[in-house]
Amino acid sequence: MISRFKRLLIGRPMKSAELEGERLSKLKALAVLSSDALSSVAYGTEQILIVLMAAGFAAVWYSIPISVAVLGLLLILILSYRQTIFAYPKGGGAYIVAKDNLGLPTGLLAGGSLLVDYILTVAVSTSSGTDAITSAFPGLHEYTVPIAIVMIVFLTVMNLRGIGESASILAFPVYLFVTAVIVLIVAGVVKVILHGPHSDIPELGTAVSDISLFLLLKAFSSGCSALTGVEAVSNAIPNFKKPEVRNAAMTLVMMGLILGVMFIGISLLAYWYGIAPDPKETVVSQITDATFGRGIIYYAIQGITALILFLAANTAYAAFPLLAFMLAKDKYMPHAFMVRGDRLGFSNGIIFLGVLSALLVILFHGDTTNMIPLYAVGVFIPFTLSQLGMMVRWIRLKPQNWIFGLIVNTIGMLTTLCISLIFIFTKFTQIWMVFIFLPLVIFIFYKIHQHYMNTADELRISIDKEKPLIKGSTIVVPVAGITKVVMHSISYAKSLTDNVVAVYVGFDEEEIERLEKKWEEWNPGVRLIVLRSSYRSIIRPIVRFIETVEWKTQETDHITVLIPQFITKHWWHNFLHNQSSLLLRAYLINQKDVVVATVPYHLMR
Amino acid sequence: MISRFKRLLIGRPMKSAELEGERLSKLKALAVLSSDALSSVAYGTEQILIVLMAAGFAAVWYSIPISVAVLGLLLILILSYRQTIFAYPKGGGAYIVAKDNLGLPTGLLAGGSLLVDYILTVAVSTSSGTDAITSAFPGLHEYTVPIAIVMIVFLTVMNLRGIGESASILAFPVYLFVTAVIVLIVAGVVKVILHGPHSDIPELGTAVSDISLFLLLKAFSSGCSALTGVEAVSNAIPNFKKPEVRNAAMTLVMMGLILGVMFIGISLLAYWYGIAPDPKETVVSQITDATFGRGIIYYAIQGITALILFLAANTAYAAFPLLAFMLAKDKYMPHAFMVRGDRLGFSNGIIFLGVLSALLVILFHGDTTNMIPLYAVGVFIPFTLSQLGMMVRWIRLKPQNWIFGLIVNTIGMLTTLCISLIFIFTKFTQIWMVFIFLPLVIFIFYKIHQHYMNTADELRISIDKEKPLIKGSTIVVPVAGITKVVMHSISYAKSLTDNVVAVYVGFDEEEIERLEKKWEEWNPGVRLIVLRSSYRSIIRPIVRFIETVEWKTQETDHITVLIPQFITKHWWHNFLHNQSSLLLRAYLINQKDVVVATVPYHLMR
Repeated sequence: MISRFKRLLIGRPMKSAELEGERLSKLKALAVLSSDALSSVAYGTEQILIVLMAAGFAAVWYSIPISVAVLGLLLILILSYRQTIFAYPKGGGAYIVAKDNLGLPTGLLAGGSLLVDYILTVAVSTSSGTDAITSAFPGLHEYTVPIAIVMIVFLTVMNLRGIGESASILAFPVYLFVTAVIVLIVAGVVKVILHGPHSDIPELGTAVSDISLFLLLKAFSSGCSALTGVEAVSNAIPNFKKPEVRNAAMTLVMMGLILGVMFIGISLLAYWYGIAPDPKETVVSQITDATFGRGIIYYAIQGITALILFLAANTAYAAFPLLAFMLAKDKYMPHAFMVRGDRLGFSNGIIFLGVLSALLVILFHGDTTNMIPLYAVGVFIPFTLSQLGMMVRWIRLKPQNWIFGLIVNTIGMLTTLCISLIFIFTKFTQIWMVFIFLPLVIFIFYKIHQHYMNTADELRISIDKEKPLIKGSTIVVPVAGITKVVMHSISYAKSLTDNVVAVYVGFDEEEIERLEKKWEEWNPGVRLIVLRSSYRSIIRPIVRFIETVEWKTQETDHITVLIPQFITKHWWHNFLHNQSSLLLRAYLINQKDVVVATVPYHLMR
Repeated sequence: MISRFKRLLIGRPMKSAELEGERLSKLKALAVLSSDALSSVAYGTEQILIVLMAAGFAAVWYSIPISVAVLGLLLILILSYRQTIFAYPKGGGAYIVAKDNLGLPTGLLAGGSLLVDYILTVAVSTSSGTDAITSAFPGLHEYTVPIAIVMIVFLTVMNLRGIGESASILAFPVYLFVTAVIVLIVAGVVKVILHGPHSDIPELGTAVSDISLFLLLKAFSSGCSALTGVEAVSNAIPNFKKPEVRNAAMTLVMMGLILGVMFIGISLLAYWYGIAPDPKETVVSQITDATFGRGIIYYAIQGITALILFLAANTAYAAFPLLAFMLAKDKYMPHAFMVRGDRLGFSNGIIFLGVLSALLVILFHGDTTNMIPLYAVGVFIPFTLSQLGMMVRWIRLKPQNWIFGLIVNTIGMLTTLCISLIFIFTKFTQIWMVFIFLPLVIFIFYKIHQHYMNTADELRISIDKEKPLIKGSTIVVPVAGITKVVMHSISYAKSLTDNVVAVYVGFDEEEIERLEKKWEEWNPGVRLIVLRSSYRSIIRPIVRFIETVEWKTQETDHITVLIPQFITKHWWHNFLHNQSSLLLRAYLINQKDVVVATVPYHLMR
């Protein structure tokens, strides 16, 4: 029944060879991989304005030069990552690049911060999408967390179905969003040209008394949150259709272009309209309202924005499991993250991401402004490490044109490093937990690695010296009476060895006597040993008996305990059977060095 | 670690023989078994007043004659149940009495409604105790549900520790409560004598225009909620110290006496003080406030009232598991309810009760006024059935003085029947779900019984004809490489039979070739079969292979699949191993007729 439900939810299983068919064309890839980056325009400008407002409304004009600076940063990042794509055609996430060039610890630092960051991507994007909804329908404000959780569940299920199908689902809204924002910007610009900008807005260059370099840097770093997600393409190169590298590079450039246009457009409109940030209504909602009024177009654009933000979370669903797979392959994360599910996605990674991001949304009550700094710093650390890695690579390998490449990556590294430092400097109170969490994650990576290495050492054999050894066998069959199940178990045991003992735990002398007599009559060819129990437990006496057997025969014999288990016809019948046998099995397996054989008995009714 | 935590929480395990020491003296029994009945005075009078207020404040004088009527009913119930105790010295709950005299279906009806009722007892008492707290501290009003849940968890843990110790904990507050209420009544009466009653109260016999028989009956039935819990003593006779029957009968009478005095006292004070019910403050709180003012005595009495109400829930913790045990013994509830835990209590019953009552509190948002009618009707149905059973018994057995006994029980039966009908008549909108829930519970009882009977039929063997049969054996060992674990498994398998095959699932031709070569070198004396998998699943190919083996050898051989399981040194290491083998085991056990032997491999590091 569970398996049928699973089919319905996630579809039929697929062959490994079908993996090729799951690969992404450029247009689909742009949808799957760039929704995170593109959707950042929904909150990027707003984050800048929130900081500037601390110096009064007169300071909002600074949003324009800051936006231009962010745009410059975007250009640098796109150029740098384009180089990474060509250098690492098998997927050059920050983990790979840093590990390859800067050594393992740095790689793990990059990988760990990216993993944490993908979880934050899902949390921030779904929460922000919910903000778009609650801006349109203020009555829903108190349901922020449930709405975000529902979206996370939905995304998790979609991704368990596999990338191909979610790409088809995604492509449409992503392009719809791009169209909607472009339409909004064009309409807004036309309106400004026709009616002129808002009358009260401070002109560019207006002197502002309260402004400080600290505030401007803080606003700039806030604006950089619009750049989160640009690294997604370089992580996912193997998911592209052939030629993977060229397609990926093209996709990256297309994404940068669209992102840049949309971001600067929104920033300009916000400035011209003289918009101030409002915790109950997003900046994009205000712009749309001012451009089209609260009509059908307003609700359509808000709806599309919400949709794209929910789907932005999907970028992380594509990236997280791949990164987890790479870390698991290097034995820094559990092997479970290497198993592809029925639908070819890495199911465990997908589920893990869904659960953790839902927890984050609950923890932060779905408040984006508190999550975004955390999110941005988690992005800029691996950005910096990845560029640094590329610099080392240029110097080490010195391919053609390496000087130019080195210059691009050096500029990129210095910029992202500066931004990381600005983050730490201006927003320490909001991001301090990163400095606890990241070392913890890396510590866990090392612990896992150590365990796998130890286990491999322990299990290694020298094939010419160590051979299987044949021993004797003793089988213990716990019985509760004389039934078909007991007969079945004894038949099985006697087919394997002659050393079979049946054990009965009795509480009541009468009962014991009756069973002993009946056993004699039945005469199954197996000795019955009765254990008297003054506790009600049947497990303890059996365990003690097995300890005695172990003590006597461990040198010469393998000891097996047969445990019958009823396989019921209906799942609810399980509540009516098997409690003691499951407990006994769990105890023996974990505490004793005996083989526990489960003999299924399929009930017909 | 879990087991150490369990010890800390519930104490060391106890021998069955210690059961005797757990038995209750009269004074302890009064505390454990009567806290439910006694604590009802905290809400009984209030329920009457809430109904009367519908006819205006002038109608409150009716609370006095109604309270007297409730008192009369109490007398009848005590006399009837006293007879039951003597007739059923092994415990004469409604289930036993009804089953014994009226047949099984009626017994199950009584048992089912009592089970549901015990769950409601816990929910109502903890919610009502929370009301006492929030009356004193109105700021806590919004935390009603969490406070009630915390109390349920606390009670569950106390009861898992065993009855004896909870009796010691309980005895003190119960007697403190009785003392407090008596002090309150005496002080109140003295105050009324000195200063006279409230000036505005309607005199007894004042004509009220809006009053109707319907309203009076409804108020009376509401007042009957003060009688819930009086049956507890007759259910728990085997828990008493010897002579059980006399001690139980004495306890019952003592309880009736105390309950009667307290109930009529509270009703009189409420009338004399002219108190009107208030959803934010309980009647008892208002009386205490009026008598002593909001000083230390007020808070002490509110605290004790809250305490006694929380502990009243404990009556259900003593009664529910015993009743569940009886139903399980008759195979109408799962066997799991028959297992005594480490501390001699029926752990499963205790946990089940705790979980369900917590769910009820959440469902009703801890609102007592909505739960009490449901609760009361659930009590009066088994009351009626139990009396009817006793009537049949008198007529059937005709012992000495049977005519007198018959008369007492007939009066009791008619009264409780009338009250049940009044409930259905006046409060149908609040109790209709009982008529859905009770049939459902009884249906489940029958389904469980049927399953156990079917299973017993299926398992029965004729000991002279059916004997164990010896067959051949084939053992399948899935391997993932050549390691100590594989060597261990093959040693084990070869010690049992010569028909051993190792199976390897390969995805990659190179990998397969390498393993085949290494296997040949190692030469463990077992054939290696390689299955190529075009899905990533290793489970499916193995299952298909086993199906082939089954098809070839099922007639002649038992088939065993050996599954190695790593037993890790630290619990968290479990996340790093065993995923595939657990899945394979679960699948084989549930779907196939093969024995699955788990070979533990204890990792040292």
